[in-house]
Amino acid sequence: MGSKYPRSVRGCLPLCALTLEAALILAFFFTSYDPFAKDRKLMSLYGVFQDVTVMAALGLGFLTSSLRRHGWSSVAFSLFMLALGVQWAVLLDVFLSKLFPGKMVIKLYSVQLASLSATSVLISACAVLGKANLVQLMVMVLVEVTAFGTMRMISLLVLQADDRMSVMHIHVFAAYFGLMVAWCLSRPLPKGTKEKDKTATSPSLFAMLGTLFLWMFWPSFNSALLDNEKERKNAVFNTYYALAVSAVTATSVSALTHPQGKINMTHIHNAILAGGVAVGASCHLILWPFLAMVLGLVAGLISIGGAKCLPVCFNHVLGTHDTSGVHYTFGLPGLLGGIVYIVLVMLQVTWTKNSMIGYRVLIDTGALSLAMAMGLVSGLLTGLLLNLKIWKAPHVAKYFDDQAFWEFPHLAVGF
Amino acid sequence: MGSKYPRSVRGCLPLCALTLEAALILAFFFTSYDPFAKDRKLMSLYGVFQDVTVMAALGLGFLTSSLRRHGWSSVAFSLFMLALGVQWAVLLDVFLSKLFPGKMVIKLYSVQLASLSATSVLISACAVLGKANLVQLMVMVLVEVTAFGTMRMISLLVLQADDRMSVMHIHVFAAYFGLMVAWCLSRPLPKGTKEKDKTATSPSLFAMLGTLFLWMFWPSFNSALLDNEKERKNAVFNTYYALAVSAVTATSVSALTHPQGKINMTHIHNAILAGGVAVGASCHLILWPFLAMVLGLVAGLISIGGAKCLPVCFNHVLGTHDTSGVHYTFGLPGLLGGIVYIVLVMLQVTWTKNSMIGYRVLIDTGALSLAMAMGLVSGLLTGLLLNLKIWKAPHVAKYFDDQAFWEFPHLAVGF
Amino acid sequence: MGSKYPRSVRGCLPLCALTLEAALILAFFFTSYDPFAKDRKLMSLYGVFQDVTVMAALGLGFLTSSLRRHGWSSVAFSLFMLALGVQWAVLLDVFLSKLFPGKMVIKLYSVQLASLSATSVLISACAVLGKANLVQLMVMVLVEVTAFGTMRMISLLVLQADDRMSVMHIHVFAAYFGLMVAWCLSRPLPKGTKEKDKTATSPSLFAMLGTLFLWMFWPSFNSALLDNEKERKNAVFNTYYALAVSAVTATSVSALTHPQGKINMTHIHNAILAGGVAVGASCHLILWPFLAMVLGLVAGLISIGGAKCLPVCFNHVLGTHDTSGVHYTFGLPGLLGGIVYIVLVMLQVTWTKNSMIGYRVLIDTGALSLAMAMGLVSGLLTGLLLNLKIWKAPHVAKYFDDQAFWEFPHLAVGF
Repeated sequence: MGSKYPRSVRGCLPLCALTLEAALILAFFFTSYDPFAKDRKLMSLYGVFQDVTVMAALGLGFLTSSLRRHGWSSVAFSLFMLALGVQWAVLLDVFLSKLFPGKMVIKLYSVQLASLSATSVLISACAVLGKANLVQLMVMVLVEVTAFGTMRMISLLVLQADDRMSVMHIHVFAAYFGLMVAWCLSRPLPKGTKEKDKTATSPSLFAMLGTLFLWMFWPSFNSALLDNEKERKNAVFNTYYALAVSAVTATSVSALTHPQGKINMTHIHNAILAGGVAVGASCHLILWPFLAMVLGLVAGLISIGGAKCLPVCFNHVLGTHDTSGVHYTFGLPGLLGGIVYIVLVMLQVTWTKNSMIGYRVLIDTGALSLAMAMGLVSGLLTGLLLNLKIWKAPHVAKYFDDQAFWEFPHLAVGF
Repeated sequence: MGSKYPRSVRGCLPLCALTLEAALILAFFFTSYDPFAKDRKLMSLYGVFQDVTVMAALGLGFLTSSLRRHGWSSVAFSLFMLALGVQWAVLLDVFLSKLFPGKMVIKLYSVQLASLSATSVLISACAVLGKANLVQLMVMVLVEVTAFGTMRMISLLVLQADDRMSVMHIHVFAAYFGLMVAWCLSRPLPKGTKEKDKTATSPSLFAMLGTLFLWMFWPSFNSALLDNEKERKNAVFNTYYALAVSAVTATSVSALTHPQGKINMTHIHNAILAGGVAVGASCHLILWPFLAMVLGLVAGLISIGGAKCLPVCFNHVLGTHDTSGVHYTFGLPGLLGGIVYIVLVMLQVTWTKNSMIGYRVLIDTGALSLAMAMGLVSGLLTGLLLNLKIWKAPHVAKYFDDQAFWEFPHLAVGF
Repeated sequence: MGSKYPRSVRGCLPLCALTLEAALILAFFFTSYDPFAKDRKLMSLYGVFQDVTVMAALGLGFLTSSLRRHGWSSVAFSLFMLALGVQWAVLLDVFLSKLFPGKMVIKLYSVQLASLSATSVLISACAVLGKANLVQLMVMVLVEVTAFGTMRMISLLVLQADDRMSVMHIHVFAAYFGLMVAWCLSRPLPKGTKEKDKTATSPSLFAMLGTLFLWMFWPSFNSALLDNEKERKNAVFNTYYALAVSAVTATSVSALTHPQGKINMTHIHNAILAGGVAVGASCHLILWPFLAMVLGLVAGLISIGGAKCLPVCFNHVLGTHDTSGVHYTFGLPGLLGGIVYIVLVMLQVTWTKNSMIGYRVLIDTGALSLAMAMGLVSGLLTGLLLNLKIWKAPHVAKYFDDQAFWEFPHLAVGF
């Protein structure tokens, strides 16, 4: 068995990571805190900021921990990617929006945005984890955060779309980015190692813990970038109702898809979040709770439907292996949310008898297509890049296996 | 073994749940958000609101996950009940307190109250979980939230009692409701399946996680409905001290009840919360920390005493099976809290030389008795209802068993 | 095997704990809440206060749960120590700073400080857990909280140092206190019981959960005692950057120290927190993010270096057994932070051309040395005290074993 391990991962990771970290610190040398920030407001936003961190580190970290031999890597690699992604995203935003010549200033908005951008990496990683080593994930972090920033800039400067909305297309962008990378890295698992892809009782409960943290704090995520108190209120409550409905829907429809009416735990982990994803783009515009609830219902149905049908197409036809169901958790509900946003803007414009209707709809459609296209293209490029031999990727026999990355010196024998 | 499974749960759950969800969405069509809400205040209350959600979804969900074969159902069914209960409770409160003719308005208070009402279902479920399927639990959610709303209305309109106080009798109401339902559903476990009722190391740690979240956020629960800043401060700190004392008391008294001085993990899971339950009704009235601490001490003693004596009476004499010790975690400390509240009001009235003393005491005693009576009666009715054959209840051989409800396709063999 | 158990722990713990609890309640009888507190401000600080509780109860509780046979004790004993420590610390602070003759008043600051003081006990306990019973830990709580209060008082009255800074030396104080106690209690484990000291997959994930909560909420810990909004903002963001860098550094350097480049989970549990510890004392003074990041990098390197080298010196030469790596998680990074604080103050004084420079540096050096000396001396005394036979310490064969303390009646056979 020993010969299947990469001969030396050692040389690569510490060297790359420390060099990168040194470069980041050097770049941060040219930045400083914003001296004109309204400190009081900043502190009142600290709670929301922290909720997003909890969702990223704990929620998305543990969400992917359900593979019974890959729990350590899932949780620890997610944290690594978050820590790295946040630093790079802050820098990128500061450089892209340099206001003062000379010293760059880190604004509060940059830091908030950085958490959200880093979250996009963690979403994509849900499809990739288990098939890449930490150096590959590090490269993915750098490329994806850059691609996300570029998409946001194009959306802002070329399409002149609403910035918050293009950030909320994060789910579509990240899901298709992750799927393309996973497609490039997917290889048929050798016989006898298939069961690594399976779960057990405790790992499923850890994953449920991740799901619960995402479910509970999703209203904070959707309202994180809103300034207007009324819009924030709408965002919080619409997200809350949509999540409640999608939890009920997902659980019951999961039973419907099984011949004996049994519920699938993997569906629960993913599909109950679909409501939060689907209202993401439009949660501040929806004025009636029932609309958010309908959205939650449809998102739950789509997500379970996807969970039932997509693995067949993707795993067998295209050969993609989507570790944690990113496509039906974030991809499809995100697309639904994007379309609903366009419809809502259209209706709003119609009601206010604004003649710019065609223009607005065009822009919003453009932003959604941009997010998807950018995700697909940059994901494909990243996937091809990660397939290079220089990264010393784990052998396919070591896919979904903590043993390839972790020392087990303290592990009791026979456990 | 296969023949013991219900032939088809399939037909029932998805149909019922989706019909109900559609009906709820339809009912929500007639509601809208409150346009006159003070948005700023609303957002400042978001933190407390979220703490209550964390306690319900995570705390009570994982609290019941200690049965080693029932962890998945405990956590996922709790989330289902919470999501459904909140929707129904919001609707119910809006309909009961309809202010404007025509369109109903969802006030902030309704949503806060809905979280608390849904929590009552999760408390009752602690006694019922493992003995009912999801359709039965769905019926229980509807009946219990309605009964809780009715109790609150009677208390408010007939007794003219303080609304917050009658909400705080939630523990008494929910505990006795759950016990009655559990009594109706309890059947002697067949031989060879007894050990399902047991725990293991990891499930106990998951349950401890639930306990810790309840313990840490209980001050938010007790202060959730208070408006006055001074009262909120008192509520937070009194709850904090009471919980600290009950944690110390429960741990040490648990050792006292064992011949070799060993501590019982199940006692810890439940009894350290007794302090928070006991100060629930009166936490805003207590002006000296030592009073809250005495209450925490007594609640801890009662709770451990109950944990030691009650199973003997209830399990063996009445045949009730109280899965997670609801009676001594919420029932008895809740009763203690109710009585202390009455005494404190009596003293307060005496000090202020108010002649209405007898009247106030009568009302408060009435409210406590009402909560208990309503819990017992509606619980009994629900229990009888759930015993009907139409719900296709799990066979007693499948009590406390995830296998009856969950698909295990990804589960590794031999795990 | 049975003969190795202590004959009767029973007599000791409940008697001591209940007597102590009664004494505490009696002492609290002479205190009351501060009637002049600004209630509004208090409530806005409730969030930070709760974050510290989460870090202590959940973070430090689960951080030590990685030993596969000691998980229950780690979590439950931590909660016990926290609950007891907070009560004693509030009382101590009220008595030490008695403002009004007669009735003592509990100020908000006392309660905040009490959470932090109790945290010091939990940090020390990371080195001691598994080698002491609950009565010994109770004694440790009382002595350590008192020693910490004394250190703070000496620092405040004799050295006239900044109070917040001396509180932030908590990591140095607590680490060396714990190490001394562990040194006194450490005995060579008998053969055949060595593997108890090992971990397994699930316990490691629980410990990772603890680590994540500490990592996510550390900004709240470092900013808890700051009043000035600008200083709080700096503290939050500097801590955030330092933690991000130390997470990246620790993960990659951990791979560097292994011949095949594998990562050590125990390193991850501990070293990613080093950044937060290192910026603790100076986080409000640092004005550029890159400085905090450099500190995080150095702390991560020191922590991993310590994790690699210290066990050799300490475990083999001195015979100390540091259960959860307190020395390299809190001790060394804390020392680094203390030295950086002194350097920063020195630079600040130089820039402002203040002639008092020598004096300030002397005081700050004195405060750091005091924290370390106090930790070492009081830890040694506590360790000697805990070695007395009257505490009926667990036999060395029962070190790191839940069975010595817990009843396993519900445990399934063969699990």
